[in-house]
Amino acid sequence: MCELLGMSANVPTDIQFSFSGLIKRGGETGVHSDGWGIAFFEGKGCRVFHEPTASSKSKLAEFIGQYQIKSTQVICHIRKANRGRVSLENTHPFTRELWGQVWTFAHNGQLKGVKNKVLKGYTPIGTTDSEYAFCWLLGELREQFPTKPRSKIKLMKRIETLSRELAELGVFNMLMAHVDNLYTYCSTKLWHLTRQAPFEEAQLSDIDISVDFKKETSITDIVTIIATEPLTSNEKWQPMSKADFAVFHLGKQVY
Amino acid sequence: MCELLGMSANVPTDIQFSFSGLIKRGGETGVHSDGWGIAFFEGKGCRVFHEPTASSKSKLAEFIGQYQIKSTQVICHIRKANRGRVSLENTHPFTRELWGQVWTFAHNGQLKGVKNKVLKGYTPIGTTDSEYAFCWLLGELREQFPTKPRSKIKLMKRIETLSRELAELGVFNMLMAHVDNLYTYCSTKLWHLTRQAPFEEAQLSDIDISVDFKKETSITDIVTIIATEPLTSNEKWQPMSKADFAVFHLGKQVY
Repeated sequence: MCELLGMSANVPTDIQFSFSGLIKRGGETGVHSDGWGIAFFEGKGCRVFHEPTASSKSKLAEFIGQYQIKSTQVICHIRKANRGRVSLENTHPFTRELWGQVWTFAHNGQLKGVKNKVLKGYTPIGTTDSEYAFCWLLGELREQFPTKPRSKIKLMKRIETLSRELAELGVFNMLMAHVDNLYTYCSTKLWHLTRQAPFEEAQLSDIDISVDFKKETSITDIVTIIATEPLTSNEKWQPMSKADFAVFHLGKQVY
Repeated sequence: MCELLGMSANVPTDIQFSFSGLIKRGGETGVHSDGWGIAFFEGKGCRVFHEPTASSKSKLAEFIGQYQIKSTQVICHIRKANRGRVSLENTHPFTRELWGQVWTFAHNGQLKGVKNKVLKGYTPIGTTDSEYAFCWLLGELREQFPTKPRSKIKLMKRIETLSRELAELGVFNMLMAHVDNLYTYCSTKLWHLTRQAPFEEAQLSDIDISVDFKKETSITDIVTIIATEPLTSNEKWQPMSKADFAVFHLGKQVY
């Protein structure tokens, strides 16, 4: 299994604090030592860092954790390989372009028989179930919407339907983002937490680091964090229900 | 204008030495201060680092320059913006997937009227001529070869034809790679250098660093470097001719 971390914010925000906690689980406080990756949206652009090694031992992960990249949306993944060997091409998040937008995707779980689904226009580079599912999902979206649909609700509903179809094949805890939204599906385990005024101090669970968000934020900031397990020990994380599909935009749940 | 740097090698090789010279030209020994990017192939996987800032001042570029990523193919670009604003999505190299392979592309020059060409299946995320040309080229390839052609020569010839068509629109100095090959087109300026036994010491032009390749290599290593301007002061760089198209595979020119 793997762990997921996502962020949606209404102002470019750095995820240093949460990322510092998560990377400890990649080989130190957790067993997810087969790779790690993180995708940052910056305007229409997106940059992805990934590596097929334990995040807790990676100098690059340590560097990124201190580099203060400010982003409105982030997707992060630490991997414990089950399907697909340990390699760069099998390391989440995966990315593709659809309608002139970057789409990025990370997944926790296994999807039995997903490779029987017919792909349309997107082909996996690696051998994971997850990348296959992502390629299938984007191909279905592009078939139904050859150009970007004007209705955001229509798009969300379609992604929900496709997510439910994938979830029938096994475990599908998923984070997917493009410039407009962060989509989440909880098959078994996913928590979220929204930080907004009045801000408090937060203490990481995996490492002795705390941050006083009062000092780091302005009063209008809204930041939602989504994670496989709560990352802090003193904040009120909300569990998502099984088979919950939720969409976040600028820090707020919009679906 | 911009500067390009490429590498093709028969063993995973780090490009630290050449990259250290190039990044100085991004704002220090050169004016290319509007962004930098580098793509490393590692097996079927590819990872790209890019940033819309001056490479000579970038902590990330400095980190990457010391990180010893070993790769058989690298494409690197430092940008002086002419078309398309300074932003992450306009920063080379660009990447897309075709036939389940990562393709990556960097370009120096301007292509007048390239945006009149009809795109087929790939859409630019940013606003540069370069990304548009790349999307057009891949769309043409996919139209002609819906699956990967068995004949490598046929593919090379097709890429040559498409490159020549783009070059008619202006200046087209280009590096493009997928897992199989590194393709290059020289419209006005591109040099290459092959390092192989007997290895010698090399001295960078832009910074006082030298390396003794005898100590860093084994006798069977073959590494070709392609660059807009020679990066070292004491090696025999070969200029490519105008309208030259060349393909490199495992360090050797194969077309």
